[in-house]
Amino acid sequence: MADQTKAISYSSYLQLEKLLSSQSPITKGSAAPAHDEMLFIIVHQVYELWFKEILTELDSVRSLFMAEYISESEIGKAVARLERVTKIQNILLEQLAVLETMTPLDFLDFRDQLNPSSGFQSVQFRLIENKLGLKPEKRLAFTKHAYHSVLSDEEKEIVRRSEDEASLFELVDQWLARTPFLQFEGFDFWESYNSAVQKMLERELTIIKDNPMVTDEVRQKEIENHQQTRASFEAVLSEERHAELVREGQLSLSLKALQGSLMIFLYRDEPIFHLPFRLLTALIDIDELMTSWRNRHALMVQRMIGRKIGTGGSSGYHYLGEAAEAHKVFADLVNLASFLIPKSELPELPEEFRRHLGFLYTKETEE
Amino acid sequence: MADQTKAISYSSYLQLEKLLSSQSPITKGSAAPAHDEMLFIIVHQVYELWFKEILTELDSVRSLFMAEYISESEIGKAVARLERVTKIQNILLEQLAVLETMTPLDFLDFRDQLNPSSGFQSVQFRLIENKLGLKPEKRLAFTKHAYHSVLSDEEKEIVRRSEDEASLFELVDQWLARTPFLQFEGFDFWESYNSAVQKMLERELTIIKDNPMVTDEVRQKEIENHQQTRASFEAVLSEERHAELVREGQLSLSLKALQGSLMIFLYRDEPIFHLPFRLLTALIDIDELMTSWRNRHALMVQRMIGRKIGTGGSSGYHYLGEAAEAHKVFADLVNLASFLIPKSELPELPEEFRRHLGFLYTKETEE
Amino acid sequence: MADQTKAISYSSYLQLEKLLSSQSPITKGSAAPAHDEMLFIIVHQVYELWFKEILTELDSVRSLFMAEYISESEIGKAVARLERVTKIQNILLEQLAVLETMTPLDFLDFRDQLNPSSGFQSVQFRLIENKLGLKPEKRLAFTKHAYHSVLSDEEKEIVRRSEDEASLFELVDQWLARTPFLQFEGFDFWESYNSAVQKMLERELTIIKDNPMVTDEVRQKEIENHQQTRASFEAVLSEERHAELVREGQLSLSLKALQGSLMIFLYRDEPIFHLPFRLLTALIDIDELMTSWRNRHALMVQRMIGRKIGTGGSSGYHYLGEAAEAHKVFADLVNLASFLIPKSELPELPEEFRRHLGFLYTKETEE
Amino acid sequence: MADQTKAISYSSYLQLEKLLSSQSPITKGSAAPAHDEMLFIIVHQVYELWFKEILTELDSVRSLFMAEYISESEIGKAVARLERVTKIQNILLEQLAVLETMTPLDFLDFRDQLNPSSGFQSVQFRLIENKLGLKPEKRLAFTKHAYHSVLSDEEKEIVRRSEDEASLFELVDQWLARTPFLQFEGFDFWESYNSAVQKMLERELTIIKDNPMVTDEVRQKEIENHQQTRASFEAVLSEERHAELVREGQLSLSLKALQGSLMIFLYRDEPIFHLPFRLLTALIDIDELMTSWRNRHALMVQRMIGRKIGTGGSSGYHYLGEAAEAHKVFADLVNLASFLIPKSELPELPEEFRRHLGFLYTKETEE
Repeated sequence: MADQTKAISYSSYLQLEKLLSSQSPITKGSAAPAHDEMLFIIVHQVYELWFKEILTELDSVRSLFMAEYISESEIGKAVARLERVTKIQNILLEQLAVLETMTPLDFLDFRDQLNPSSGFQSVQFRLIENKLGLKPEKRLAFTKHAYHSVLSDEEKEIVRRSEDEASLFELVDQWLARTPFLQFEGFDFWESYNSAVQKMLERELTIIKDNPMVTDEVRQKEIENHQQTRASFEAVLSEERHAELVREGQLSLSLKALQGSLMIFLYRDEPIFHLPFRLLTALIDIDELMTSWRNRHALMVQRMIGRKIGTGGSSGYHYLGEAAEAHKVFADLVNLASFLIPKSELPELPEEFRRHLGFLYTKETEE
Repeated sequence: MADQTKAISYSSYLQLEKLLSSQSPITKGSAAPAHDEMLFIIVHQVYELWFKEILTELDSVRSLFMAEYISESEIGKAVARLERVTKIQNILLEQLAVLETMTPLDFLDFRDQLNPSSGFQSVQFRLIENKLGLKPEKRLAFTKHAYHSVLSDEEKEIVRRSEDEASLFELVDQWLARTPFLQFEGFDFWESYNSAVQKMLERELTIIKDNPMVTDEVRQKEIENHQQTRASFEAVLSEERHAELVREGQLSLSLKALQGSLMIFLYRDEPIFHLPFRLLTALIDIDELMTSWRNRHALMVQRMIGRKIGTGGSSGYHYLGEAAEAHKVFADLVNLASFLIPKSELPELPEEFRRHLGFLYTKETEE
Repeated sequence: MADQTKAISYSSYLQLEKLLSSQSPITKGSAAPAHDEMLFIIVHQVYELWFKEILTELDSVRSLFMAEYISESEIGKAVARLERVTKIQNILLEQLAVLETMTPLDFLDFRDQLNPSSGFQSVQFRLIENKLGLKPEKRLAFTKHAYHSVLSDEEKEIVRRSEDEASLFELVDQWLARTPFLQFEGFDFWESYNSAVQKMLERELTIIKDNPMVTDEVRQKEIENHQQTRASFEAVLSEERHAELVREGQLSLSLKALQGSLMIFLYRDEPIFHLPFRLLTALIDIDELMTSWRNRHALMVQRMIGRKIGTGGSSGYHYLGEAAEAHKVFADLVNLASFLIPKSELPELPEEFRRHLGFLYTKETEE
Repeated sequence: MADQTKAISYSSYLQLEKLLSSQSPITKGSAAPAHDEMLFIIVHQVYELWFKEILTELDSVRSLFMAEYISESEIGKAVARLERVTKIQNILLEQLAVLETMTPLDFLDFRDQLNPSSGFQSVQFRLIENKLGLKPEKRLAFTKHAYHSVLSDEEKEIVRRSEDEASLFELVDQWLARTPFLQFEGFDFWESYNSAVQKMLERELTIIKDNPMVTDEVRQKEIENHQQTRASFEAVLSEERHAELVREGQLSLSLKALQGSLMIFLYRDEPIFHLPFRLLTALIDIDELMTSWRNRHALMVQRMIGRKIGTGGSSGYHYLGEAAEAHKVFADLVNLASFLIPKSELPELPEEFRRHLGFLYTKETEE
């Protein structure tokens, strides 16, 4: 604080005068003031404040990952900040309950007057999506248009710039591809992994065939499912298949990154993989909470406006429900569960390898 | 307590000996005990205990609605009990976070040994669905088979019986159809409502046509949407259209019940409609929380087992996601929002009518 | 919107430019920028926005209760708005988890630079307390000074004005004192209530004396407790005792209001008491959530600054813990549970009385 | 499963027949069945199931800490399990909302018939307290008696045995006292820490003296507070003072353990301290959630029974409130915040030291 003559106060620090004069209900002073409009404004402003904090964290984590070399303590920071994002997302979800105290009939009191403004115009929400790594070409048809068309020129520019920046997805992909020890002094993890997978698949097939509780029809369907499961392992085991799936838009992570994250998931109990495991978990959580938010939001919109067109002209509920599914960024990490094998079947790590994974001081205190 | 010689204790009252000896992990005592199996068992047992409480409340509410005449204080009880169900559902949702502390790899430690048992075999969950009013024929294809095929004969019988009982949906439909005052001494609510609707639709069309922020292509789409909106009002205004929609499976409530609930929604500020309004709100909440649970559960299953087959042979994640959408029971009530019109355009109630809606004592204290 | 040339947008409606430029971390641009300061600012701003919404609702409810005659539908509105306040309070509680992602060490990075600003300077929080009905003379010693001394002259004036306004507590007290039917055509509720109470007390004394599970010492203590319980009933049964308790600061509600609320609690199943019962419940909830917030906040402060002085010089944790207990506004309503008697022992209402409590239309549909 | 002839089912695995036949409301079949008694039973049974899971986790963590040598991956497991406990505690808190749907009047319908059983008789709750490390001599006066006197002989024995076992508190104390690197090759952390502390205290005194916003009276009080703060640092800096505070019951952790945890808090960004930091955080969270639960529970009890004696004869609300404060186990860890100093004033670690704290592989990849 340069100016020592004026003591800082709670109110000046938080700029409350500005903050608390930023609510101007349209219907205030009109013939029919709508009591709930203040709630509507404040809820949305709270969302935007949280969005700003989420962006602050995403930007700082992206910066950390842009470095050439990322130390363990920086991964620790990234984890803490991403976990903070999930805590905020929980609040975003829970505070829908506050907005839902406004009934559809109350909303009708001022809804038409908001036209054509719309939540689709939230620049910060678009930035969050883009910085996480939602690619423009993955957006649903409707939003591909709306996404830009509803924005002012200045806003368009801001959003477009964020498309060009390295997203968290891309940065994490690169970092994962550098996971150490995928190959180590003659120990070939992937060969061992592959053979363990084949054994597991055989065992599962037997279970399906022997299940006494299903009809033949169901069993047949399950066998077909199993064949698909077997085929799905090609995604991580075959370079060609992986490339094909990426082309088809069914996979996004690079093969190296997929292998790296699989190793982290399988050996997360080794000290060296603790933080990376929490990092991947935080990313999955963020994605899951985005999806939960989209789902809950879609339910709320349906409840508020039914099948009618939303403010701003979106087709409303239906679109939101689809988006929840299509707009996942880290789906590959979630789907990694498909490629896990039981700990008991994990290829054992060579002794020399394990020694390298422990903390140095561990070795010393053992002496 | 007849037997005064033995004082009741916390432990005997809650039958803790029985309760706390009902956990027998399969892997306990085996070569590879799975630490997380106890969590898995307890979480599921907690779910079943809550299901029992939900069924207790649903049965009591159904009983209340089976009476010839349902007094205001009984509606009050029904509301309190349904709101209790929503509080329990909130817990069901939140405690998924506990189960998610088990990672997919931890689950693999004992997952195969659970085969072919499956959550699809929860009889109480099926009873909740049936008693709420999910019709067997509305169940998704897969579950139509599984729903019965995975159950023992005794369980099948229990579930089947619940299909024949009057569901909460049916009982509420009948009660709604009896809403008083739809016609009242020459005041024709529906005629006034209809004309108000037509005015509103005209105004909305103007907004769409004048919206400067959308392309012509989008505007065209919105006009088509609006035509659908207009058409959708036929659901409550035309007997033929309503019957058709019921046949097509797009509507479930009877026309009278739809009209009754619309009246309740529109005039919920009148004392007489307070409790009915809370009742409908509680039903919508229950449905929304069921959907949220299915969505969140689907995410958790995907995270736990990826694209692989679920225990018990369900196709897992994909099925659960679809069910969330298809298995709504009170969708008609949610969609009522489509038929609301602004309070300012509501047909005014005749004075004599209003007098009948107030409490008697109000009149007296006014004197 | 007067100016039709400029279409309203999401961003202009929510005044996002203003809102999102109101965060200026002190350490930004300094030699040692503190990453978590942005979080700290935003969390507090979110609190202030919610406070504004709470004040909006409290003011509107106070207005409703200032009227000469309060109709049932206005009570309905008051209930809906107070229940909304509780939903917001839940969020205030839950979002402490976001702030707790900042560790004490992170806070140290900028804590000293905030001095002497302090959360004690939140004018809106003081307004909420005052408008609910916290009397200045009931404030704990420390805060009695701090409460004003830390504010600017302008802020002092605003807070002082709110002390003079009719608080929600006072307005509800007056409204409760007008509860109808305390006396009714020769039926003396209080006489019947009193005799039922005496019977219940006798029964409880027997239970204590016969309890086989406690030592004589404990039993003796329980008998003394019971005598206090008996004495405590004087609060509602004796005018002198009530006046004495009010003088001693142990009771705040007027005798008439206490009797009114007791009647509401005991006969809440009668239609006429439904909304009043929810109103009292909402007030108890608001008080309980304020207390929970103070408790949780005290824990967080202890965790953040330990036993050291808080920013702004408050003695911090210790004060906050005490305040949680002392600053309850609707404690009398919570303590009403002490004066309840089992439904089976409730004096029965005369038939004529019940008829007046029902809705008029009920009578007619019975004919 | 030895017996392959009988396929495992959901119902047999979860022992649902046993579980769901363990609810026998006392008032069922009586002249006045109390609808809410089922809820009351099920809520308490759910609590007991969760208690069993918490005990399972606490026992497994205690086992891990009983080992001579505790590897990093075992700390990782301990952290995951303690964090799981906090997730369960969150549910324990939130589900109070379900029980609160039962009103005091509803409870009166069966409350007397539960006598003399009481929640004080929950053996599992006592075990959780004891295994965490609540010492019998620290229990509040009332509960010191009740704690045993309300239990059956068999229950007493179980509880007493748990008092003799090594508690989590004791095991963590011992483990903390072994924190490596407190002294390291001539680097004396404590000397540097001490001098940094003295500098910080001087700065804070200046702030207090220069604060323009407080009266002289308040300033004088703050200066006294500051002297106490200065004195409080003796707790970690002076062996004599520490011993004295332990004798007085104001501190519980050994001096070595306090120093170890302080080091972990101050250098938590170093990879080696990541997991220990999360461990301490989880312990603080567990303690805070226990306190929150006691606070919320006390509020609920007050609301349910007012000032009257509780079932089982406890003095109820008042006791519970006090216990929340007195029964903290890890208060020393929370109060560590008092001893933190800003990162900028932290003694710098010698290069050699830092090298030992990093992962071995880090060094190699740097080459």
